Amino acid sequence: MKIPVVKKILSANDQIAADNRATFDELGVFVVNFMASPGAGKTSAILATTERLPKNVRPGVIEGDLASRIDADTIAARNIPVVQINTGGGCHLDAPMIRTALPQLPLQNIDLLLIENVGNLVCPAEFALGANLAVVVASAPEGHDKSYKYPGMFAAADAVILNKADLLQVFEFDVDYFRRGIEMVNPDVPFFPLSCRTGAGVDAWMSWLLEKQNSFAEDRKQSVIV
Amino acid sequence: MKIPVVKKILSANDQIAADNRATFDELGVFVVNFMASPGAGKTSAILATTERLPKNVRPGVIEGDLASRIDADTIAARNIPVVQINTGGGCHLDAPMIRTALPQLPLQNIDLLLIENVGNLVCPAEFALGANLAVVVASAPEGHDKSYKYPGMFAAADAVILNKADLLQVFEFDVDYFRRGIEMVNPDVPFFPLSCRTGAGVDAWMSWLLEKQNSFAEDRKQSVIV
Repeated sequence: MKIPVVKKILSANDQIAADNRATFDELGVFVVNFMASPGAGKTSAILATTERLPKNVRPGVIEGDLASRIDADTIAARNIPVVQINTGGGCHLDAPMIRTALPQLPLQNIDLLLIENVGNLVCPAEFALGANLAVVVASAPEGHDKSYKYPGMFAAADAVILNKADLLQVFEFDVDYFRRGIEMVNPDVPFFPLSCRTGAGVDAWMSWLLEKQNSFAEDRKQSVIV
Repeated sequence: MKIPVVKKILSANDQIAADNRATFDELGVFVVNFMASPGAGKTSAILATTERLPKNVRPGVIEGDLASRIDADTIAARNIPVVQINTGGGCHLDAPMIRTALPQLPLQNIDLLLIENVGNLVCPAEFALGANLAVVVASAPEGHDKSYKYPGMFAAADAVILNKADLLQVFEFDVDYFRRGIEMVNPDVPFFPLSCRTGAGVDAWMSWLLEKQNSFAEDRKQSVIV
């Protein structure tokens, strides 16, 4: 008798994340999941990104918070399609929440979907949403020891932004020490010190992001031709 | 037939928190649970507090982090008894972790036990440790909207510290707006804007804390006499 062996069982969340991803792929939407401590600058990073997109990369945003629609209002004021998810106390976004939000977005007119997770440097890393990239936003005022204290989050990152980098000296932030902490769990992860407030360093981040988005769009074109 | 009705079932965590509290009460240890986002300044607030204690209030510290012993090393360098709890990925301290840590501390020689929870503005509020007071440390760089976005944490506070208040202007932090958010969930909670770095405002916090600790100590003396 042959006994079936199932190699990898996806969790309910991972199954729905895979469904989300299939939807995104089908519609040509490149998706980035921004994770950070409260107040590190996820919304600022999303705004700085949308302001610098070429016209052929149309943005959309999903905002995650326990409560309030402060961030969604900020995004909507820029005429960017946005949905606010209130977790009602939940400490992270999950794939079912994203699935529920999708019908509220004009996905056919979105090339780059930026998801702002709940401000939390622990739990969001454990829940796939179906995004193409996970970006962790750290910030100078938090201190340079965060990469050592929250290794799971930094291990999960496809890129690390260090925001409020115009204030490194004020907070005696040792960038090398911080990076060594990251490298212990995630060697060679792209690293972007920048200031959303002054704009310094944002171009390097944008080049990297747009290269990723562009290569996704090119792959998709080719697979359509074939 | 009389049917027994049990009014309040304590969770496993709450039962152990109550045991912890009984231990603290018996030994005359007043306990404060510091909760905050990563990098808001919990360790700095604990250090600023220990530096200003009168001689008859002897401190002890429990440090909570996912990983590393950075904070415990900082505390130990001041010759303060300290235990580091590593949650190994867990997003909050809980009562069993505290119970496990207690035998490592000289509780007979501690009057004020300061517990630094994992940096997280969501989950720690949901887990009682057995402390007398819960103190939330916010900070200017996080922005003035945090009280609206993380209402559960601010609702759970017996006091709110606003740290890095020397940088309010740099971060365009509107204190009144921030306080209105707190008041929506926790009216009249004591509020202490201060800077651990400059020391400004720390005295007001110390007066309040020591009054609480003193009234705990007085109550205990009286109950011993009676």
